[in-house]
Amino acid sequence: MKIIAIDSSGLVASVAIVEDEILVGEYNLQYKKTHSQTLLPMLAELKKMVELDLGTIDAIALAAGPGSFTGLRIGSATAKGLGLALDVPLIEIPTLDGLACNLYGSEKLICPIMDARRNQVYTGIYEFLKTREVPFSYRLSRILPQCAVSIDEIADRCNGYGREVIFLGDGVPVFANRLSERMKVPYSFAPAHMNRQRAAAFGVLAFEYFREGKCVPAKEHAPEYLRLSQAEREKAEKESKAQEMES
Amino acid sequence: MKIIAIDSSGLVASVAIVEDEILVGEYNLQYKKTHSQTLLPMLAELKKMVELDLGTIDAIALAAGPGSFTGLRIGSATAKGLGLALDVPLIEIPTLDGLACNLYGSEKLICPIMDARRNQVYTGIYEFLKTREVPFSYRLSRILPQCAVSIDEIADRCNGYGREVIFLGDGVPVFANRLSERMKVPYSFAPAHMNRQRAAAFGVLAFEYFREGKCVPAKEHAPEYLRLSQAEREKAEKESKAQEMES
Repeated sequence: MKIIAIDSSGLVASVAIVEDEILVGEYNLQYKKTHSQTLLPMLAELKKMVELDLGTIDAIALAAGPGSFTGLRIGSATAKGLGLALDVPLIEIPTLDGLACNLYGSEKLICPIMDARRNQVYTGIYEFLKTREVPFSYRLSRILPQCAVSIDEIADRCNGYGREVIFLGDGVPVFANRLSERMKVPYSFAPAHMNRQRAAAFGVLAFEYFREGKCVPAKEHAPEYLRLSQAEREKAEKESKAQEMES
Repeated sequence: MKIIAIDSSGLVASVAIVEDEILVGEYNLQYKKTHSQTLLPMLAELKKMVELDLGTIDAIALAAGPGSFTGLRIGSATAKGLGLALDVPLIEIPTLDGLACNLYGSEKLICPIMDARRNQVYTGIYEFLKTREVPFSYRLSRILPQCAVSIDEIADRCNGYGREVIFLGDGVPVFANRLSERMKVPYSFAPAHMNRQRAAAFGVLAFEYFREGKCVPAKEHAPEYLRLSQAEREKAEKESKAQEMES
């Protein structure tokens, strides 16, 4: 079984081809270009390099949100287009779950944080649970499913569990100082090779989703923004002001 | 500070650009092409995509061996060429150390295994030790430095520590059955997104080496094969047979 995975939910653009236990190809960028300049050219490059026959692809996995609104729309449009053209389903991976999966098998609490602006972060709290059989494998478990909260709220939540925490994501450089003031339990930050979205990690999670039948037809997919976009917020504010003036 | 990292020690071809805490770009392939067909084109692609000014590079990190003899020579030649042209030093990362670094921060014993043919594996045993300051960081520590031994010998060594072990590397699919017969302590296998060489992990380790002054001038670099090549072995056997016949 072979999956193309893509992520454009944040600053990173990332594409991967995963075939069972093998990461056939992976291309990750964190550079000041828009995802419309990077994502498809990266996939085209990878496809060419591994002589990929698109007809052998079983599903398209993607970081389905939250994240940058524009980034998510580019990722969703790309995944939908591929899914429709190849007649394969999409596998929607919550962005924070995919980020947490970078730290597969860790015994610590895993807290991915993405800067969501307006004094919030997209975040969640995860742990890996061991299967009973030997050789063990580890399964990602949500302690706090992905949500948009303040950095203080997520720090306090983490403190509440009394366990060591590892943070990762683009929220780390933004909030490292605040975390140092607020954290009471031991904590660390993931290093450069595991601290941002990797499509490969989304692809690995997607295999579990696929086995559990968690696929959607390409035409039914929509990204999960978690919050209203700026345009929607402004529209709602305008309408509520108009209502106030009428009443 | 900015480092180019390359790995062609095994089946994977991998290049990465790491700038401090940021993985600027990473390109990994595990596909039936020779490293001479992949490594430099991948680096050229990455350089173009992130508009890399090679004059800003501070060092070239590489998987310095052990591994495939041809792969290591291609990696070494590439790194040496870049180092000489850019007048920057090389940072030689032992291949097994770089592989272990995929599992940064793990509390388990880490045992990377590469198929070395002739009933041996290139392997080692590692753990991550915590620094004293908060936020913690983790430092790779060698329990058994890289070596060439039989799969039974490394399995027995692992059993001796009585701790859970995580295996990774291209030796896993080759020796998984033998490990299941031989292992007495709990163990697991790393998943697809962390089970092979990643230049990004070598790059992250290279920052530590650089801080500690562990660099070599490009012209002094030579790969660490750990064993004799087939040609050298055959020559030695021929010479010893000749000596026997003379005596």
